[in-house]
Amino acid sequence: MGLIGGSIGLGLLDSAFAESVIGYDPDPVSLSTAVSHRCVSIATGSLDDVSLADMVVLASPPETIPQLLRDLEPIIGPQTVITDTCSVKGVIMDAVPESLRSRFVGGHPMAGRELGGVKYSRKDLFDGSSWILCPFPETDQDAYLWVQRMVYALDARPVRLSPKEHDEHVALLSHLPHVLANELLAMASELRKPDIHGGSWSDLTRVGGSNPALWEQIFSMNSEALQGTLGTLIERLEAAKKMLAEGNTAGLREIIEKAETARYRAVTPQLHQVNSE
Amino acid sequence: MGLIGGSIGLGLLDSAFAESVIGYDPDPVSLSTAVSHRCVSIATGSLDDVSLADMVVLASPPETIPQLLRDLEPIIGPQTVITDTCSVKGVIMDAVPESLRSRFVGGHPMAGRELGGVKYSRKDLFDGSSWILCPFPETDQDAYLWVQRMVYALDARPVRLSPKEHDEHVALLSHLPHVLANELLAMASELRKPDIHGGSWSDLTRVGGSNPALWEQIFSMNSEALQGTLGTLIERLEAAKKMLAEGNTAGLREIIEKAETARYRAVTPQLHQVNSE
Repeated sequence: MGLIGGSIGLGLLDSAFAESVIGYDPDPVSLSTAVSHRCVSIATGSLDDVSLADMVVLASPPETIPQLLRDLEPIIGPQTVITDTCSVKGVIMDAVPESLRSRFVGGHPMAGRELGGVKYSRKDLFDGSSWILCPFPETDQDAYLWVQRMVYALDARPVRLSPKEHDEHVALLSHLPHVLANELLAMASELRKPDIHGGSWSDLTRVGGSNPALWEQIFSMNSEALQGTLGTLIERLEAAKKMLAEGNTAGLREIIEKAETARYRAVTPQLHQVNSE
Repeated sequence: MGLIGGSIGLGLLDSAFAESVIGYDPDPVSLSTAVSHRCVSIATGSLDDVSLADMVVLASPPETIPQLLRDLEPIIGPQTVITDTCSVKGVIMDAVPESLRSRFVGGHPMAGRELGGVKYSRKDLFDGSSWILCPFPETDQDAYLWVQRMVYALDARPVRLSPKEHDEHVALLSHLPHVLANELLAMASELRKPDIHGGSWSDLTRVGGSNPALWEQIFSMNSEALQGTLGTLIERLEAAKKMLAEGNTAGLREIIEKAETARYRAVTPQLHQVNSE
């Protein structure tokens, strides 16, 4: 029961999707906060109670997932659908026992807040966000559809990717922004007046310094894809630095114009799609 | 008469600072927009009319400033105070004729919008923003105070720095974020689903692709400081990549924790100041 689990509970209880939401957490403080914030209809500190559920959503830190899956395997019913919310998929899905794969759908809601903890839960946390879904080749179509329905019930947009595609996408779209925010904040601490910045700086560093324990895990668990993305960025920055040194303004302008085009495509995907048909 | 000049005009006419604001622009379309949006009280296409002003604010693209200063030198009155709004200071201030230096104060409002042009002007554009002021050693104290008063009249916060300090600060706090936004957008255009990103990505790339002609100039004019900042970032990213490859999670965590501290200092400068006294 953290920010993500709490917000899923709030959102589902506000929808027609779930009659009741059972919240499990070994920590009694998180459990009682989840209850007082009405994130769950039943709170339990015993994993055995999860056997009652038709669907299990694992919303705990990535490193806890493999053990949880092993603990759940003998408990849950034969039809129970399982999904998770981890921001890495390759290492998580490799840890899913063979016997659970037909009803497991990897998930990753692309939403969050700087503030962690169940007390910051919001029922609209996922409104309009993408929610990546990664089934196994052997995942039942019905299990996939149930998880997809849950995503729609939370007003999010399901996007199907393979685990490898997911990890490459988030390495660039999520993990690299976090790395950069951290590095830039550290660099700014060397300045005499670090607080004179404008809007672009606040935007860029907003996620910096958040939840070291979680992000250390995420970076490590998506290490390969993140190393690749970092390598590409380093090469591009070296090229930009060379253009500056050589006074190659045409090259600099080309970078900005390419970004302008990329931005236009990203913000108007429907329009772009229509044009390319 | 662009976004910055227009917003200064709007803000000053809304304050007690200026009785009237003369807007000069060689382009009649910008001039008539400035008039219809009430950014100026008098609009002129003739630079000679600027001789009427007690204070001149140069809010045109950086590359136009040296010629404007040469054109203004014989026209303006002997007491007229001059300032500019360029986001680079070293090369601009090097171009100020000796005869004008005693009444010149370099300026840089740390505010803006993604949308350029006088029609997007807002009287509150500078509310709460930093506004860097760079006097020459020979600048009159009175001239400095007048420009400072103008900044206060626009509800901004004057911060005094040397031109070199300014350029180093903005290389990191403003120009590097723009470089990164551009590079990341270009990288994302290679992905199959570039539009699945969450909030951190939108924040980071918000300024990407904006105004190629202006940013090409800014990057070039702050080339030396920006090369230095890029070099530092590249070194840091190489180190982070190495930590990932070696599985050095303690090192990764240290980066995030350092950012957390830096962020805390930057957002609570008063508190930090009190503590260090």
